[in-house]
Amino acid sequence: MAMTIDLNCDMGESFGAWKMGHDEQIMPYIQSANIACGFHAGDAHIMRKTVALAIQHGVKIGAHPGLNDLAGFGRRNIPITPEQAYDLVVVQIGALAAVAKSQGSKLHHVKPHGSLYNMAANNEALAKAIAQAVLDVDGSLVLYALANSLSAQVATQMGLCVKQEVFADRTYQDNGLLTPRNQPNAMITDIDKAIQQVLSMVKEGCVVTTSGKVIPIQADTLCIHGDQANALVFAQGIHTALQKEGL
Amino acid sequence: MAMTIDLNCDMGESFGAWKMGHDEQIMPYIQSANIACGFHAGDAHIMRKTVALAIQHGVKIGAHPGLNDLAGFGRRNIPITPEQAYDLVVVQIGALAAVAKSQGSKLHHVKPHGSLYNMAANNEALAKAIAQAVLDVDGSLVLYALANSLSAQVATQMGLCVKQEVFADRTYQDNGLLTPRNQPNAMITDIDKAIQQVLSMVKEGCVVTTSGKVIPIQADTLCIHGDQANALVFAQGIHTALQKEGL
Amino acid sequence: MAMTIDLNCDMGESFGAWKMGHDEQIMPYIQSANIACGFHAGDAHIMRKTVALAIQHGVKIGAHPGLNDLAGFGRRNIPITPEQAYDLVVVQIGALAAVAKSQGSKLHHVKPHGSLYNMAANNEALAKAIAQAVLDVDGSLVLYALANSLSAQVATQMGLCVKQEVFADRTYQDNGLLTPRNQPNAMITDIDKAIQQVLSMVKEGCVVTTSGKVIPIQADTLCIHGDQANALVFAQGIHTALQKEGL
Amino acid sequence: MAMTIDLNCDMGESFGAWKMGHDEQIMPYIQSANIACGFHAGDAHIMRKTVALAIQHGVKIGAHPGLNDLAGFGRRNIPITPEQAYDLVVVQIGALAAVAKSQGSKLHHVKPHGSLYNMAANNEALAKAIAQAVLDVDGSLVLYALANSLSAQVATQMGLCVKQEVFADRTYQDNGLLTPRNQPNAMITDIDKAIQQVLSMVKEGCVVTTSGKVIPIQADTLCIHGDQANALVFAQGIHTALQKEGL
Repeated sequence: MAMTIDLNCDMGESFGAWKMGHDEQIMPYIQSANIACGFHAGDAHIMRKTVALAIQHGVKIGAHPGLNDLAGFGRRNIPITPEQAYDLVVVQIGALAAVAKSQGSKLHHVKPHGSLYNMAANNEALAKAIAQAVLDVDGSLVLYALANSLSAQVATQMGLCVKQEVFADRTYQDNGLLTPRNQPNAMITDIDKAIQQVLSMVKEGCVVTTSGKVIPIQADTLCIHGDQANALVFAQGIHTALQKEGL
Repeated sequence: MAMTIDLNCDMGESFGAWKMGHDEQIMPYIQSANIACGFHAGDAHIMRKTVALAIQHGVKIGAHPGLNDLAGFGRRNIPITPEQAYDLVVVQIGALAAVAKSQGSKLHHVKPHGSLYNMAANNEALAKAIAQAVLDVDGSLVLYALANSLSAQVATQMGLCVKQEVFADRTYQDNGLLTPRNQPNAMITDIDKAIQQVLSMVKEGCVVTTSGKVIPIQADTLCIHGDQANALVFAQGIHTALQKEGL
Repeated sequence: MAMTIDLNCDMGESFGAWKMGHDEQIMPYIQSANIACGFHAGDAHIMRKTVALAIQHGVKIGAHPGLNDLAGFGRRNIPITPEQAYDLVVVQIGALAAVAKSQGSKLHHVKPHGSLYNMAANNEALAKAIAQAVLDVDGSLVLYALANSLSAQVATQMGLCVKQEVFADRTYQDNGLLTPRNQPNAMITDIDKAIQQVLSMVKEGCVVTTSGKVIPIQADTLCIHGDQANALVFAQGIHTALQKEGL
Repeated sequence: MAMTIDLNCDMGESFGAWKMGHDEQIMPYIQSANIACGFHAGDAHIMRKTVALAIQHGVKIGAHPGLNDLAGFGRRNIPITPEQAYDLVVVQIGALAAVAKSQGSKLHHVKPHGSLYNMAANNEALAKAIAQAVLDVDGSLVLYALANSLSAQVATQMGLCVKQEVFADRTYQDNGLLTPRNQPNAMITDIDKAIQQVLSMVKEGCVVTTSGKVIPIQADTLCIHGDQANALVFAQGIHTALQKEGL
């Protein structure tokens, strides 16, 4: 049995004169790049360069649509209607698809960013709107959604191909969802523990929750946080551990 | 011989809570809508509504890419490189194409906005970059370019289908180009004179310049300014005059 | 006994090429202008023109700080910390104060805009942060706050001079606060009823709630909505009715 | 005779989630901080933190107004009218002055940023507008202007206190102005040569131009570029060299 997991990372999150992340360093270690589309980060020029970098490394190109919130980097829970979410996703997929096309390539997936991702995870109307936007622009695109979330479930029911996303450096609750960041035990800072969690999710299909329970989880793709100081070390560590296990 | 002319108008130039133009009133009188893509005007929600309005009236949908300059409405000559112009055009075409696709329709043309249009009219590098962007995203799109301009010439040479755009309310110089707006005789405010100029361009293929010379001009599409106070009266007047002439 | 009420209106809410409101028409009928400071609306140039217009009509100049949200016109409840609210209010007061000073005038009051106003009305930490910002920049400024709200109470306790703001076209609940806009009976569309409510608030110091109860209310300043279609008619109607009563 | 020179550095140029510069590291080595005001960089929160950092280190607080151009970091020569320049400077001084006041401090100087600084250096109308803005908001503020420039001259004539700004890492032309960046010999990359130039300017009041001529220059304040990779090394080197010379 050939177990495998995809490593994905948010990319192209610089803006104008401001640099963010370590795209060039991390690109060699991942399989999927989620590229910002100019709404929460990125701009037309950075989109071009990031798509070129992904193509160069044979990394799958994904749109990473976010809220229209540069000031908050798309991480503030700005209340939006499902219709507004739909619109945001449509135009951002379209913009990045054109960049990919202009370079002889094409989009592979869509992963909503920040608050758009989080708000949709437990809001059926938003989840439906986002899935519908993907279907209406290009039904062959894969949606990356939080493992065990409503957004993953809704999109699957609507006929989208969904990849369940898991995290190495976040703990899980008994309900299968991430421990909220405002709780003290939300993060896993020890890289060995993080790798352990990843291997358990990929090889066993389960994860140990904060209460000590073992619950099932489908780990299709693993998120590497590119904007953190130790992102590169982390990416390399996970990459090496997975290779060692033949995954 | 069946002479005809296309009427085009910039549309979807509202932004957030701010309304601009009279899209609903003017849409019935035009054949081509140039829809703002969120960079100089418009936003994701307005793009959706404007595309829907165009579809409803059977009007051809065009992308209207502009400079990334909401504060200046894309009318300030911000110095950009050809590569930046390319990027701006690619993502804006892509964004609107996705909106059209999500509504079961597709783009017909591209008309650069404001300073992007004007700067490209006599700048070969910018003109090439814009034409290349259109070719790279979708070579079947028609480019609307200033009649007698370098940008029209360059795009034609590069293999794009180009429609030469003329103006009813602007005077022409002996070189075939528009009299700059900062000159006193740049505008034609008398609607009868404006209609006369249109009929001459469409029926005779020529226009009388400010010096009194008669020069040839190819009038494929006529620009209606949607943001002017008398835009509707103007649109109706031109529409009626052309109908009366059987054009 | 000389009863009186101040009429205030949000002003300077255009942005770049986009016009909003009817500032020139309404300015003659009001005593206080709340001028947008470029964060939810307005820009440096519009601020200058609006301050000049207020000076010309002898209208008191107020800063109208809002959330940093042009796309949402400051009306979306973007979650912010008290410290962020403080910062937003400090810089916006400062910006408008400089414009007033450059024209030989000075600020009179501060009225938070939209979501900043509404969120502070029942959030003690936000209310304190806003009041502290006003105190720290210029403790002589008057704060316009929702009548009967926590924000009015908090600011008064902190030593600010507070004017309680009432509305002619909104109904009141038994708790003294406005009926939320998403409820069917939130608005008073009949201008006679609106004038009746104003006269009751000013002359009697009380208002009839949606349940029919009569409750006390302190009406120091009355908000005229400048962005509504019938704003001018409304402003004139209220103005005339108050004059007729000698208020 | 006590010769001395002020070291100034652009500060607070981060934006939202994006970090720029090394403010904490450089602040100990400078005497004047030019703090971005949210138009080309910075935001209300960063302004507060940067002012606090300057106060903590006893560094003079200056407003660093720029063009309204986050996308271009205020470095694109966007054509603006003198009146627009005036407006931009007024509101940005006001915003930062309020931040300083809210922390019990006050502004010391104004240094225009990027294109606003450069365009004013040889444009009399822009230079006058900027100087007038400073005078109208607070005539006691010092203007930092390019040494030997028209903007320095105009502001002095208008009665402003002007400090002539010189550069360690830029070469000078025979006309006393900087060699434009697009010329090959514009930059001085050797730190020893840069220090040599600074000492010559401070001690001798002259500089050797690219043609080998020795011309007079008044070096009141020296610009340290905070956004460059070696900014800290440079700042320390200059700082040490000046101390060694007792300056």
